[in-house]
Amino acid sequence: MNESNFLKACRGEQVERIPVWFMRQAGRSLPGYRKLRETHDVLSLTQTPELAAQVSMEPIDLLGVDAAILFADIMLLPIAMGIKVEIIEGIGPVIDDPIDTPEKVARLEKFTSERIDYLQETIRILRSQLKVPLIGFSGAPFTLASYLIEGKPSRTWFKTKRFMLEHPEAWNILMATLSDGIIEYLKTQIAAGAQAVQLFDSWVGALSPEQYRTYVLPHVQRIFAGLKDQKVPRLHFATNTAGMLEDFANVDCEVIGVDWRVSIGDAKRRIGTKSLQGNLDPATLLAPWGTITQTTDRLLAEINPKQGYIFNLGHGMPPEADDMVIKKLVEYVHGK
Amino acid sequence: MNESNFLKACRGEQVERIPVWFMRQAGRSLPGYRKLRETHDVLSLTQTPELAAQVSMEPIDLLGVDAAILFADIMLLPIAMGIKVEIIEGIGPVIDDPIDTPEKVARLEKFTSERIDYLQETIRILRSQLKVPLIGFSGAPFTLASYLIEGKPSRTWFKTKRFMLEHPEAWNILMATLSDGIIEYLKTQIAAGAQAVQLFDSWVGALSPEQYRTYVLPHVQRIFAGLKDQKVPRLHFATNTAGMLEDFANVDCEVIGVDWRVSIGDAKRRIGTKSLQGNLDPATLLAPWGTITQTTDRLLAEINPKQGYIFNLGHGMPPEADDMVIKKLVEYVHGK
Repeated sequence: MNESNFLKACRGEQVERIPVWFMRQAGRSLPGYRKLRETHDVLSLTQTPELAAQVSMEPIDLLGVDAAILFADIMLLPIAMGIKVEIIEGIGPVIDDPIDTPEKVARLEKFTSERIDYLQETIRILRSQLKVPLIGFSGAPFTLASYLIEGKPSRTWFKTKRFMLEHPEAWNILMATLSDGIIEYLKTQIAAGAQAVQLFDSWVGALSPEQYRTYVLPHVQRIFAGLKDQKVPRLHFATNTAGMLEDFANVDCEVIGVDWRVSIGDAKRRIGTKSLQGNLDPATLLAPWGTITQTTDRLLAEINPKQGYIFNLGHGMPPEADDMVIKKLVEYVHGK
Repeated sequence: MNESNFLKACRGEQVERIPVWFMRQAGRSLPGYRKLRETHDVLSLTQTPELAAQVSMEPIDLLGVDAAILFADIMLLPIAMGIKVEIIEGIGPVIDDPIDTPEKVARLEKFTSERIDYLQETIRILRSQLKVPLIGFSGAPFTLASYLIEGKPSRTWFKTKRFMLEHPEAWNILMATLSDGIIEYLKTQIAAGAQAVQLFDSWVGALSPEQYRTYVLPHVQRIFAGLKDQKVPRLHFATNTAGMLEDFANVDCEVIGVDWRVSIGDAKRRIGTKSLQGNLDPATLLAPWGTITQTTDRLLAEINPKQGYIFNLGHGMPPEADDMVIKKLVEYVHGK
């Protein structure tokens, strides 16, 4: 097999065909996954290696994408650090007894790799079967901290921000503890076989650029520095970062993933030489085919898509998306 | 009385003291409002002129702000256009039988000013009592359309975007109908005495810059053009627009309100000569006093705050904010 277009694009090299994968391609809307969910909850699926591998594999053949993403949940790391989490249908992760005082920060336990033996096994199974690279991932410290403090998904993140602003020292300890865990969590995934890693910061766009620089960026920088010697591409994705792209890009990583709230051309100009991933609005997948191709064409025309670029959505795939439309879109982008 | 610093700042003129007001200053957290809410629901309060005037007045004396905002709800216009709305505690506006087909767009009735006689009366009462200017307002067409289509607040706006992308003609009719209503609604408020008007587009940041230009901007332009001869300052506020500030600012209005996800200095450079309003992160009000003043100082240092600038939050006041802290912040900014 030739070297993967996905890995080449991560390194900024020229590719023959634009690599494509989708956030949330594993799980959420595909038929095999939906079938498994009739009898298993999300967390138990992620913790059962044979089934998690099956879910990660499903989009590779079905959609023809160029990379597999480990089927896992960003809450697996907090769980491995001693936090009690339930994923509740229609709500999301719900935390038992959220971290609402500085004292409770101390309850986070040190992450050790044997706490995710099951995930290492999933990765080994996947590597023995996959013909495309496997991407490991972790939630970023702000996003994880916000779940731990809010106790459930929020619209305003007022509790998280209040904690951050009222208790900056405890906040830094929380962020540093999570960051230490994230570094080891991703190193464990790489040691087991992950060929690239993505840090997901879904909620950090709730901050102002100044808050991001003060309370988050130093921790993210330390995570990426801690992964540098691993020699695998490091991807950094967040949403709602159009007002702080320069800061967000100011970490030592290979790929920046951007959401759809900024044009990819604008992101390219502001981010510079790093590779880019994104940024089709996920809702575009629900549009008529002509609108999908027109939007894709405009996106690709804003950059040189055959160098340092990975086609993806600007956030996770909508649950309502139609597999056959997604497959057709992969073929369409491959044909460019 | 000297001419208001608020109105001067709207027009880009030099002021002696930085004008201050807060989105959601009327209603939400103040004691008089909370007392009234024990016996009245939100909609009936907005529809009872004496009480609505009382709620609008409360922050003027209590907080010392430089402008009053009409106590109303963005759903009053859809209600006046024949839509059935309930405001449900902890959820927000919920629509009976949402607009989920092109056919249902036709159910929107034409807005006429007598449908808001009560709001005109509120404005007249306020003008007879207020010593600061009164700001009228309306929800913007995208935000209103998204409530009408989703049926309730959403995190993803997938239904709204799907409708917009699948039925562009019906979407345009819906947006044009709402825009016609908005123009008349704001003209009615101005005729009754509103001295400035703000268009709130809380959710339009869910769109990509390209979607915004295609499906929203022409309607917003028409609204502002339709209000030009009214000779009152026109303010345009939205959140999550850091990736499309240039487009967002590309309407004929006097003031652009920006959220906290972009630095005010960056916004100023990108927006140019228009006046600016904002953009303190509402969560800052929950921080210790030293953090509030430091953040305010940094914000004010990025621009020339005594010309073409109105101090405000980047979105609505948090319900948990402390009145006495807000009052102190108003004094602090006035002392600059």
